[in-house]
Formats: sequence, structure tokens, C-alpha cells
Amino acid sequence: MTTIKAYGTESAEADLEQMEIERRDILENDVKIDILYCGVCHSDIHAARNDWGNATYPLVPGHEIIGRVAEVGSKVANFKEGDLVGVGCMVDSCQSCSACEDDLEQFCEEGMVGTYNGKNKHTNKQTFGGYSTSITVKDDFVLNVPENLDIKAVAPLLCAGITTFSPLNHWDIKEGDKVGVVGLGGLGHMGIKFAVAMGAKTIMITTSPDKAEDAKRLGADDVLISKDEDEMKKHKGTFDFLLNTVPVKHDINPYLNLLKRDATMVMVGAIEPLEPMHGGSLIMGRKRVAGSLIGGIKETQEMLDFCGEHNIVSDVEMIDMKDINNAFERVTNNDVKYRFVIDMESLKNEQ
Amino acid sequence: MTTIKAYGTESAEADLEQMEIERRDILENDVKIDILYCGVCHSDIHAARNDWGNATYPLVPGHEIIGRVAEVGSKVANFKEGDLVGVGCMVDSCQSCSACEDDLEQFCEEGMVGTYNGKNKHTNKQTFGGYSTSITVKDDFVLNVPENLDIKAVAPLLCAGITTFSPLNHWDIKEGDKVGVVGLGGLGHMGIKFAVAMGAKTIMITTSPDKAEDAKRLGADDVLISKDEDEMKKHKGTFDFLLNTVPVKHDINPYLNLLKRDATMVMVGAIEPLEPMHGGSLIMGRKRVAGSLIGGIKETQEMLDFCGEHNIVSDVEMIDMKDINNAFERVTNNDVKYRFVIDMESLKNEQ
Repeated sequence: MTTIKAYGTESAEADLEQMEIERRDILENDVKIDILYCGVCHSDIHAARNDWGNATYPLVPGHEIIGRVAEVGSKVANFKEGDLVGVGCMVDSCQSCSACEDDLEQFCEEGMVGTYNGKNKHTNKQTFGGYSTSITVKDDFVLNVPENLDIKAVAPLLCAGITTFSPLNHWDIKEGDKVGVVGLGGLGHMGIKFAVAMGAKTIMITTSPDKAEDAKRLGADDVLISKDEDEMKKHKGTFDFLLNTVPVKHDINPYLNLLKRDATMVMVGAIEPLEPMHGGSLIMGRKRVAGSLIGGIKETQEMLDFCGEHNIVSDVEMIDMKDINNAFERVTNNDVKYRFVIDMESLKNEQ
Repeated sequence: MTTIKAYGTESAEADLEQMEIERRDILENDVKIDILYCGVCHSDIHAARNDWGNATYPLVPGHEIIGRVAEVGSKVANFKEGDLVGVGCMVDSCQSCSACEDDLEQFCEEGMVGTYNGKNKHTNKQTFGGYSTSITVKDDFVLNVPENLDIKAVAPLLCAGITTFSPLNHWDIKEGDKVGVVGLGGLGHMGIKFAVAMGAKTIMITTSPDKAEDAKRLGADDVLISKDEDEMKKHKGTFDFLLNTVPVKHDINPYLNLLKRDATMVMVGAIEPLEPMHGGSLIMGRKRVAGSLIGGIKETQEMLDFCGEHNIVSDVEMIDMKDINNAFERVTNNDVKYRFVIDMESLKNEQ
């Protein structure tokens, strides 16, 4: 056992503050990672604040982790000291159910083990996340990170990246497809980058005209303001695919209306009840609405390789560990372009 | 022009009553049909009562039509006098858009022409439906009916049949699939028959325990009472496909919960706003909900051929034309097993 520095909460009420946690000794298949950077995901805030009612304290958030391998277990073949690696939202699963066998560990029938606030199936210990100087993870859940990328901006790929890459990849988006990305935030800005890189004609769909310029800077071919009924009518029935990243309750009927016959809108943001969907929105045109949750480990590696090849990273704002509470406030207020990343050096240097 | 007997309404307020309408002369591609039977569809009632606000009076309902060819135009090659034929919900479409080219005339980009209350694109005349002794229809929209079936019970196949066959066929239901049919009415009872004939393990899902016996008589392997939470839990995540025939607003979340990962529920009944769907119902398990509308002419012919091969017809209750208003009341009260069919001989004999 080693004791390391981490940022976490001792209870639902406590602010995030520096604490010390015990990290387990490495097992034969484990990879111990010195953390360089960790992204700040909306889920971190929900977990720290126990918004979902399932937090176990002490709790160390963080599941967009980039670091270098410090040590490997005796049976680890694919990683060695010094390798640049990443850890995303999962650190374990049963590895034997049909979902795991299909490389979709996020849908493990026994439940995937979250990078924090989970219980490791193999060690039976609680998991602590990436707001920390170190983490130890089973090799099957460690990802190779291409060295050519701006590595601090790679961190958000491990959650925001795979969440948007996976549906575009699974629904086979290809050159010439007309793809709409609904909502421009941490997820949406990655959706634009991926859809553009896949060769799609990519339209940013947003309620806010003031986001148009930034959407184009990110690569969107065009912007569609969803409150403009005339513009929405012009685009009716023309989209091959919609990636809906809106994280809150909203009315999806106007977006379904944009889809071509037999086309799909995939929801990745809103884990809550939506406004009533009209049956006719699906029946007329045999349309589909689906959901998608992060992505499996194999696909996450494919996503990182794709990013290496196309030089894709997240747009980030770097913060010191001590500024995390302020960052949480700003994320809650949608005031970040588009992801905060913690420079973990700032935690090492804290007294 | 010929003048024929029909049952229809002269205005939104009027009851259905016998009237005389003019049928157009046959064009070179037309088939004139002596109507033997016509099914009574829920849509007929909505149209007669102008529930959808788009009725043009006088209006003759009926789009589940079975009859024999009386006369054919000079260019009709596929039909001859005496052939047993059917006409469903459409009698025309543009026949040149991408939907029509894909044999999905129901999604014609210029709008399909309804069998009644529509405007024929080629003749520019209003269409009148099957509550009538005769109808004249473009040959491309006339279907061959297998002679081996109980023909009076074939009529509802032209709407209720294709509406349920099409999604099961399109989503490729096959032997061994576990299929749930939600709701037991005119659509649901056909859904059971088709799913069983396709080799699926077919479960009737209903709120009403008193429907269990009849569902089994129709061929369902089992019945799941959706109000029984313990039973619903047992079936969680086990269905390959759900065909949702419920025609009214309802909560689809409990049904989505029954689907396997990546599986689909198709809505065919509810053309109205549903209860709020939870984003998580789709995101957890990458599930899908889709819609489906009747079926194209090619697929409708496939459905009729499939019925001929598997000896599938609708369960019907025969009525005389004069009893139509009572039948409308009973359909509205869900008091029919499972489809009324008008014996058109009863109209011919009326004074």
C-alpha cells in the first residue's frame, strides 16, 4: 500500500479538498500510473455532490486521466515504464458476459466498475479517480495515448471524446453524410471535430446564435439555429444522422423532423426524462432515436488512434488543483470552452 | 363516369349514410374492382368524424378492400377480369422520388395519395374509399390476393396486416428471436400471428390479464402482464424486438427496459405525444425506438403471399353496411375481436 495525495470529498456536504488516500499494491496485471492531467467532467460534480444519491465517501472524482506508466505487474506485456497512457470511465468489468465479449464493457451485465465511486470486482476495494497524483489500474483498462498529440488536451477524449466518437463510429458516419450535432458544450465540440474528420458535412445545431462563430472555428460547415423555424423547415428531412449532446430535458420532436427517412438521432447527454415525444415523429419516415454510453475499451483505443492520425484533441482550459471548486461552478454555469483540465503538477506542489 | 352506391358522410356532423358517388372512367392503367369486403379501420372513424381536421366532404371511408377485377384498362398487363385483388391505404404516389424508387410509397416525398380523402396525382380527382360497391385504382396499387385464404378475413391484412408485418420484416425477425407484441387489438392480434409464423418466441405484453387466454389462442407462447412489476423485472433486458401497437398516449419506459442491448422497439399505433421518455432508457444498453407506417406496395404483396403460404388471416366479425355506425361505436370502445369487415353484398341489396 502507498499513501498518495488526492483531491476529494469526505462527505456529501464537504467541499473538495486535499486529502490522503491509500492506493493498493500492484497486482500481476496492474499498471501504476503517475497522473499528469485529469479532465473535469460534469459527472464529477454530480458524484462529488451526491446528486445521484449513490456516492460513497471519501470520494475522489476524475475519469479523464492521462499519465505515464510508473510500474507494471509481472504479467503485464503491453505496457512499460514511461509509456504515455490514459484511463477513462471504467477500470474493470466481469470480462466474461456477452457485452464484455463484444468489447462493450460499458454495458457489462454485472455492471462496469467506475473509475471512481465503484468497487473493483477483482480486488473488492473501492475505486478512487484521477484528481490524484497516482492511480493503479488493470492493464486491460489502460489505453495507449499517441505521443504526437498535445497531451494535456487529450485527457477529455477519455470521456467526452469516446462518448461522441462511439455513436458516429457505430452508426458508420462516412464522407458525404449530412450530420447534425445538437448542443455545443464539452460533448458537442468533440462531436463536431469527429464528424468533420470522418468526412461528414457537419452542421452545428444550437439554440444560441452567439455560438455560431465558435462552431465554425471548430470545423462545422454550417450552423442551424433551432429557434429559427424557417431555417428548421429548410433543413427538414435532410439529415443522415443527428448526435444529440444536450444534457438536460428538452423537446426532441423538432430534431426528429430534421432526419431523413430511416435515419437516427442518438442521445448521449440527457440522462433524464425528455419532453413528450410525438409517436408521429418516428412513424412518419420510419425514424429512429437511440442512446449511446461512452464506448468499450477497444473502441476507446480506436478513438485515440483516430485522434493521433487526425490530430484531434479537446479545447481545454488548464487549471490548478486548488481551483477545482471554482471550475465546478463554471462548468455548472456552462462557462468553459470546452473542458477544464487539471495540471496534476499543481497537486504535487501543494503543501 | 358511373354512379355507384357508397356509404359516406356529407359533412363532419352527418352520420354515415348511403349515398351515390361518381366513379371516374377507367384510364389505360386502371383496374376497376367490384368490392366484396371492406375492413373497418380506426382511421376510418377519425376521418369520418374529422378528428384530424383534414376531411373533405363528401367522404367515403375504407382502405381494407377485397374484391374481384371487373374491368381493366388497355395497358394493364398484370390483372384480368375475375382476379381476386386487394387495395390498401394508398392508391397513388409520385412514383419517381427516392422513397417511391425504394418501394416505400407510403413515404412518398410528394405525399402518398390515400385511398379516401386524398387527391389522385394523375387524375386530379378526390379519392373515395371502400365503403362502396366499386373502386377504380391504378394497377401499380392493386394487390394480388391468394385464393386459398378465407377472403372475407383477408381485408384487414391490407392495413392492420401490413402495419405489423412491415416492421417485423424490416427488422428481420427470425426463428428463435424473443419478440414482444405490446397491446392486443386489431394491430396486436396480427403482430402475434406474424411473429409466430416467422418463428419467433412471441410474448403478448398487455395491461389486461383477461386478454391472456385469447393471446395464447392466437399463438402467443406466453403472456406478460405489464402491470406486474415482478414479472416485468424477470423479463428485463431479454427481448430482441418489441412491436408496440398501443394506439394511445402511454409510458414506453417500462417496455424499453425489457429490450436487450442494441435492440429496438417499433411504434406503429400511437400517433400522438407519448409520456416523457427517459434518456437513460435508451443510453443504458444503446437501445432504440423507431416508428413504422403501413408498408410499401411491394412489401404489401410479400405480406399477402406470406399469408397465403402460412394461412394467416385476421380474426373478423362480419357486419352489414347498415350497421356501420354501431361498429364505429364498438371499435371506439375496443369491443371487437379483432376487426369488423363489411360484407358489401349488404350494400348492393340496400334500397
